[in-house]
Amino acid sequence: MQFSINRLSFIKALGIVQRAISSKTTIPILTNLLIDVSNSNIQLTGSNADISIQTTISGNNPDHELTISSTGKITLPARFFSEIVKKLPDRELSVEVGDNFQTTIKSGNSEFTINGLDANGYPHLPEVDSEHPIHLPAEIFREVIGQTVIAVSKQESRPILTGVHFTLDHNQLLAVSTDSHRLSQRNVELPKEAEGDYNVVIPGESLKELARMLDGETNAIDMHLSENQVLFTFGATRFYSRLLEGNYPDTSRLVPTSSETQVKFAATDLLAAVERASLLSHESRNNVIKFTIKPADQVVTITGNSPDVGKVEEELTPATLSGADLEISFNPDYMKEALRVFGPIDVEIAFTSALRPFTITPADNHTNFIQLITPVRTF
Amino acid sequence: MQFSINRLSFIKALGIVQRAISSKTTIPILTNLLIDVSNSNIQLTGSNADISIQTTISGNNPDHELTISSTGKITLPARFFSEIVKKLPDRELSVEVGDNFQTTIKSGNSEFTINGLDANGYPHLPEVDSEHPIHLPAEIFREVIGQTVIAVSKQESRPILTGVHFTLDHNQLLAVSTDSHRLSQRNVELPKEAEGDYNVVIPGESLKELARMLDGETNAIDMHLSENQVLFTFGATRFYSRLLEGNYPDTSRLVPTSSETQVKFAATDLLAAVERASLLSHESRNNVIKFTIKPADQVVTITGNSPDVGKVEEELTPATLSGADLEISFNPDYMKEALRVFGPIDVEIAFTSALRPFTITPADNHTNFIQLITPVRTF
Repeated sequence: MQFSINRLSFIKALGIVQRAISSKTTIPILTNLLIDVSNSNIQLTGSNADISIQTTISGNNPDHELTISSTGKITLPARFFSEIVKKLPDRELSVEVGDNFQTTIKSGNSEFTINGLDANGYPHLPEVDSEHPIHLPAEIFREVIGQTVIAVSKQESRPILTGVHFTLDHNQLLAVSTDSHRLSQRNVELPKEAEGDYNVVIPGESLKELARMLDGETNAIDMHLSENQVLFTFGATRFYSRLLEGNYPDTSRLVPTSSETQVKFAATDLLAAVERASLLSHESRNNVIKFTIKPADQVVTITGNSPDVGKVEEELTPATLSGADLEISFNPDYMKEALRVFGPIDVEIAFTSALRPFTITPADNHTNFIQLITPVRTF
Repeated sequence: MQFSINRLSFIKALGIVQRAISSKTTIPILTNLLIDVSNSNIQLTGSNADISIQTTISGNNPDHELTISSTGKITLPARFFSEIVKKLPDRELSVEVGDNFQTTIKSGNSEFTINGLDANGYPHLPEVDSEHPIHLPAEIFREVIGQTVIAVSKQESRPILTGVHFTLDHNQLLAVSTDSHRLSQRNVELPKEAEGDYNVVIPGESLKELARMLDGETNAIDMHLSENQVLFTFGATRFYSRLLEGNYPDTSRLVPTSSETQVKFAATDLLAAVERASLLSHESRNNVIKFTIKPADQVVTITGNSPDVGKVEEELTPATLSGADLEISFNPDYMKEALRVFGPIDVEIAFTSALRPFTITPADNHTNFIQLITPVRTF
């Protein structure tokens, strides 16, 4: 195996597959990356127990300055090899595998020889049927991920809740997450009906890593499913994740359909006030803040309290406020995370009672994106 | 005690004194900051066991929008109070101390009440004689700190070596640091002779913190000494540090006066090559790289080796190279740190023998700034 390549192109591709590689793995060869050189391109693969990423550097793109002298495969220590490539002096570099998987990397006057491992010991990637993919604009999918991963459970006591539940009904893709204290639900209308049966739970951590890779250069993403794996393809990259096994709880009846008190705020103003109140709630044992809502006065008073440190009180004047008086207490961190994903728009909060979950939705659309927060009993 | 002030001015002053405040202190009141309001200004103080910082917000500067309603002192939890001030909604804020040191902070519709502590419990700052200060351009002093703190010892086994040794001879200020493996020495010619006897060791950590505060806004700095304290004054700020007790070792005869092999490099080129070689030395138990110097070929070969991972070899062509052949091994991290402080200039390295310390100096001035590195015996 021998090739030479433009160093910056190679660094970019290495950075993509390195996202899947962890130094903390129980399978030693997975700390290595796989380089597979064919007649026309180079395929790089990185993997951990949960996700695998594969990307192809095509010989057809002149920017890659790829010259392949002989084909073959090798695995090399990923972190160390990437550090070397980043620090090499020249515009190009060459890689050549010699006896006993010893690999020589040359650039300018610099010559590294490092110990590789036999590529035959590297695990095979799962086979995923690539028929009937769901085709999505990358920007929309990144938005869906950002809106749902916040409510994914961080506790392993119920593993199924550490994922986002995706279901498809005709052309309606529904993504739901809940950690049993809050819920986030986003609906996307697909341009055309997708075929096949979609009802899967994708680990939140896989989705976060995927979202980081969907930068401005990526226009569209295809989602392929198998029984226990999902494959996302975009550009020259394939992103595999395992699926979570088990039945996701039925969340369809959790979202209330009516409310007693409705209040509208600019999300950024409310976020700033909740952040201030949470400074004090964070210092107390039970991390809660209180909304005191008085429609007659058109005022919502936010209070936070810590017996040791002090207290905070702030009166907010909402854009609109209607319905019944209410005092309600809740975890401010849930509301902060919820408000941040809305960005600079108006939101409506709809309350039923002091002990029933309340919803936060965009003020101009109460169905496409719904966040639900369960209050805390303080009396 | 009651005042109102422009929030951004107050945040800036809080940021200055907070540099001295640590949440890990054995004296509880030092987690608080001291606010002392007089008729014309506000003085803020933060301190830990080693350094104390005091800054004054003058009522004469209209940008501060300072209105003092009543004078007095209070101490408030520093981290928490700063977080509140940063998140307040309005351009201004007001602070008022009530009964039992309860302090009310108001801004816009937001009102915090937090528990303060009696300012009489706050320790007094040391008295430092402010006669005969050394007056220095701030930029030069920051440079001196940056050049010497790298060689300060990180080990507490010989506490005196964790500081930088400053001595004054007529108008020559000499700063020296050594961790016994390397040494850094910088000489500064003062514009005029300073009076008094200067022979002090200032903790490296204090100097690093001070250097971070000397931004582009600071033109000059005054250095005042007492028996066991040093006080730096600049702008509206006073920076106190304890001095290290004990005799600093005599370093005057450590720097060799002659050499057998002399080589000149662009510091940045050499740094890049040493960084590459250190990738491998870092993977081996004894972190050393080797220079093989052949004046007849005008070549310096750098090699790094790790039995487990691999090896690297790079041939460098220096700007000039003269003297005897040499093979010499040393810790690449010492050379990397040394080369970084030179910036993009040419440096001369002067070697005596494989087991004697070598010097690195600017190619155009071998006396003002000298770094010394002790090689490692590998045979």
